[in-house]
Amino acid sequence: MTITGENFIAGERRKGTSTFQARDAQSGEAFGESFAAASAQDVSDACAAAADAQNDFSSRPLAERAAFLRLVADKIDALGDTLTQRAMKESGLPEARLNGERGRTVGQLRLFAAEVENGGWQQLRIDHADADRTPPKPDLRLRMIPLGPVAVFGASNFPLAFSVAGGDTASAFAAGCCVVVKGHPAHPGTSELVAQAITEAVAEAGLPAGTFSLLNGTENSLGEALVTDPRIAAVGFTGSRGGGLALMQHAAARDVPIPVYAEMSSINPVTLMPARLADAAEDLAKAYVGSLSLGAGQFCTNPGIVLAVKGDALDRFLAAAKEELKSVGGQTMLTTGIHKAYTEGASRLAQRTGAELLGMGEEAPGTCGQAQVFTVSADAFLADKGFEEEVFGPSSIVIQCEDLAQVKQVLSGLEGQLTTTLHMNEADHEDAAMLMPVLEQLAGRIIANSWPTGVDVTHAMVHGGPFPATSDGRSTSVGTLAIERFLRPVSYQDMPESLLPSALRSENPGYLVRVDGDYRA
Amino acid sequence: MTITGENFIAGERRKGTSTFQARDAQSGEAFGESFAAASAQDVSDACAAAADAQNDFSSRPLAERAAFLRLVADKIDALGDTLTQRAMKESGLPEARLNGERGRTVGQLRLFAAEVENGGWQQLRIDHADADRTPPKPDLRLRMIPLGPVAVFGASNFPLAFSVAGGDTASAFAAGCCVVVKGHPAHPGTSELVAQAITEAVAEAGLPAGTFSLLNGTENSLGEALVTDPRIAAVGFTGSRGGGLALMQHAAARDVPIPVYAEMSSINPVTLMPARLADAAEDLAKAYVGSLSLGAGQFCTNPGIVLAVKGDALDRFLAAAKEELKSVGGQTMLTTGIHKAYTEGASRLAQRTGAELLGMGEEAPGTCGQAQVFTVSADAFLADKGFEEEVFGPSSIVIQCEDLAQVKQVLSGLEGQLTTTLHMNEADHEDAAMLMPVLEQLAGRIIANSWPTGVDVTHAMVHGGPFPATSDGRSTSVGTLAIERFLRPVSYQDMPESLLPSALRSENPGYLVRVDGDYRA
Repeated sequence: MTITGENFIAGERRKGTSTFQARDAQSGEAFGESFAAASAQDVSDACAAAADAQNDFSSRPLAERAAFLRLVADKIDALGDTLTQRAMKESGLPEARLNGERGRTVGQLRLFAAEVENGGWQQLRIDHADADRTPPKPDLRLRMIPLGPVAVFGASNFPLAFSVAGGDTASAFAAGCCVVVKGHPAHPGTSELVAQAITEAVAEAGLPAGTFSLLNGTENSLGEALVTDPRIAAVGFTGSRGGGLALMQHAAARDVPIPVYAEMSSINPVTLMPARLADAAEDLAKAYVGSLSLGAGQFCTNPGIVLAVKGDALDRFLAAAKEELKSVGGQTMLTTGIHKAYTEGASRLAQRTGAELLGMGEEAPGTCGQAQVFTVSADAFLADKGFEEEVFGPSSIVIQCEDLAQVKQVLSGLEGQLTTTLHMNEADHEDAAMLMPVLEQLAGRIIANSWPTGVDVTHAMVHGGPFPATSDGRSTSVGTLAIERFLRPVSYQDMPESLLPSALRSENPGYLVRVDGDYRA
Repeated sequence: MTITGENFIAGERRKGTSTFQARDAQSGEAFGESFAAASAQDVSDACAAAADAQNDFSSRPLAERAAFLRLVADKIDALGDTLTQRAMKESGLPEARLNGERGRTVGQLRLFAAEVENGGWQQLRIDHADADRTPPKPDLRLRMIPLGPVAVFGASNFPLAFSVAGGDTASAFAAGCCVVVKGHPAHPGTSELVAQAITEAVAEAGLPAGTFSLLNGTENSLGEALVTDPRIAAVGFTGSRGGGLALMQHAAARDVPIPVYAEMSSINPVTLMPARLADAAEDLAKAYVGSLSLGAGQFCTNPGIVLAVKGDALDRFLAAAKEELKSVGGQTMLTTGIHKAYTEGASRLAQRTGAELLGMGEEAPGTCGQAQVFTVSADAFLADKGFEEEVFGPSSIVIQCEDLAQVKQVLSGLEGQLTTTLHMNEADHEDAAMLMPVLEQLAGRIIANSWPTGVDVTHAMVHGGPFPATSDGRSTSVGTLAIERFLRPVSYQDMPESLLPSALRSENPGYLVRVDGDYRA
């Protein structure tokens, strides 16, 4: 499979005028093919094709939609080592991680295929007529329908699982929405390989070509053009807070505002409860350093702050963490830009009033990120909101609190988060219960006794949370509930059987349905 | 029960400095008590009390929450004729309508009480752990939790069913959210009576006083202060497009943006399909005039435009509608401001290029609205977007199309709507099927063979639709699905049983739950 550097507009490969190149994450040097930057015309053509394809794609039987998702997965699997090697060069991520991420990506597509077939997300409801009521009660039937074409922004930190065929794309397809992807310029070759797989799957499945397009480019104007195109009905994004906020503003300023699902920034507070900390300070410290430095700390769920009550146990934890840090090797970061932002962010953090450097990982050459852990008193943390700024990379802060009341105070004042974690023993449960209402307000996922960096792709996962963790805390971008982001309800009143969508006809095809208020599984 | 003109701040009656009076809808004259306009401090105190009460209110057992909703309903029922008489004077709506609306209001509260107990809206999901998987699969459990305190804006056109204890308040309470209502200044006495009923119910149910507050006032700054208060987590609104857009802007400009559910404007296109029109032109005309003039046309679902293909049948329909109109009496409109806007809007409509007056109702004295029907060719309609502006009141336009292709063209170009309707025979079904994808994109509810003005409060109702019908087409403001507007998901990972919310513990209390992907009703 050759990489040509072209955009994919509804099945057609198209060259552009201005061009850019991929960069080797390790060296920062440009290499290989020239990639065409999509023009305004390309954006418009991709969106027009998506709008044209939308009704055809969404009205196919759910079995066809599911088969299409599985076909995309098969074709990505078939890319095998070609895909891994390209992604390694562009992202700097190691082979095992990227093979795992490919598994996650195809697993995600197949999970959504099964979800499409399950059909519960249609929220079918039937209220039967009652002619004897005053006034007569009509027959009403409700289902969820797709919002329309979705713009997906590939993320830099998951070149497979949250990029061209990642979670946003999979859930949008599952909802019946055509997708126009804006590929992340940090991995254009990886994007092209995956886009080619999807494009082939669209053709083989006999779907309209406009079901999928990929647009490349390095300018913010490309994203703006995509989000403001009147045919785009929703946006999925994973990236920086600045990027997400800009998309929110563009979407809100449209003649017809549209929903933006932006997963933006989170520092994922972890609380070490006293009894557990006393029991296992050293084990916790080891796991902490492993979690914060995993993948050069480039996870949305990286544990950016840890809270604990001052004392011997915390001192043991800190000493062990300092020791553990020493052997953490530097790892190549995703881009030179991210490396630079990390270095600057960590240095800003070091200069904040009250911040003390606890320890660092091994010296990190070139574009590698060096792990760093700071300590700060809760009072100093509370005095400076700047401590809450996400430093994307392998750094973290331990907040030393006077008592659990102060732990609660710090947690209560934090911005919205993707996750929050409690490490606890049974002896801590009573105190933990007191914290639970605060944690529920704070984050989309509350974790007991592990570290936040693992995000399982399943039904009960929430990878979302109150602003600014995401632009819209009513949703998740990982797990099957993500499909609901791209749906809206329609009610059919007294509609003749032949004009009802098949799922709402009297012979229910086996989906969950709520009939006159009662659920029937 | 005396009306004192005070605001209700978390159970406390509070006077204000500046004051205003209610106006008799019929005469336009101010009468009776002085009402206190809420100050910025009142807004802040109400929101602070709501935030303080939020966790207590939302963590009560669902049976208590349901009992509270029923208690509110009982207390509103007990207001009986006092409430009806006051609402008649303030709104100009007739007695039978307001008694019906009271029934709708208490029915709505009781439906939400049953919905709270049903519990399906919690979207419970349990994924069991699997230690043998690589990596080990955690135990994940998901539920929906309330967003937080909700600001509700009372609507002028439903002084009971969409005001202080209306659909937005009922669904927010049902979701577990405390509510701060901004009462509509067109019916402050009605608002106070209902607020007193809720306040008593809060106290009797042993709920925290901050569960509910009512703020009165006539200035836009009051609404702005409420929507921008950092403790408010979501907004429910029914009213004008300008008002809704302003709230959306305020909400989006906050440090922490919040969802706004504004039900704004809709002209509810009705299509008369050829076979049905030929069969029943006269009956349709009679029902049309009845629907467009019902309640002086002051329904969000008023049939503002009718589409049909030119020809004998349509001529018969028009002739019959013209005749029927003659005996439509003028009815008092809700406020002098609405009357003025209606008169001006209808006159603007009359002056649009291509608009022809078909007929009018009886001459309407004072603040009464005079029914008016216009005709226009589809070509002229398509040439002037101004025809799509909602004229709130008893006016409507019949669009004469060349053929069904032009009907489809007009429908395809319309802005988002709350409803769209097809009148059809079996002979029309094939053509109707061709229109269905357009109608699904157009509106939240598709009605066959009746008129849009009836909005049943039930499970499968959607009273919502794409922008600008509402600010957020992903939801409904009528029916039990409305509860979902005020919820967000939280996932609990490996949480000890004692720290899980009771609904997610292993012994399921009887709610719908999805276990490892399978629904269990």
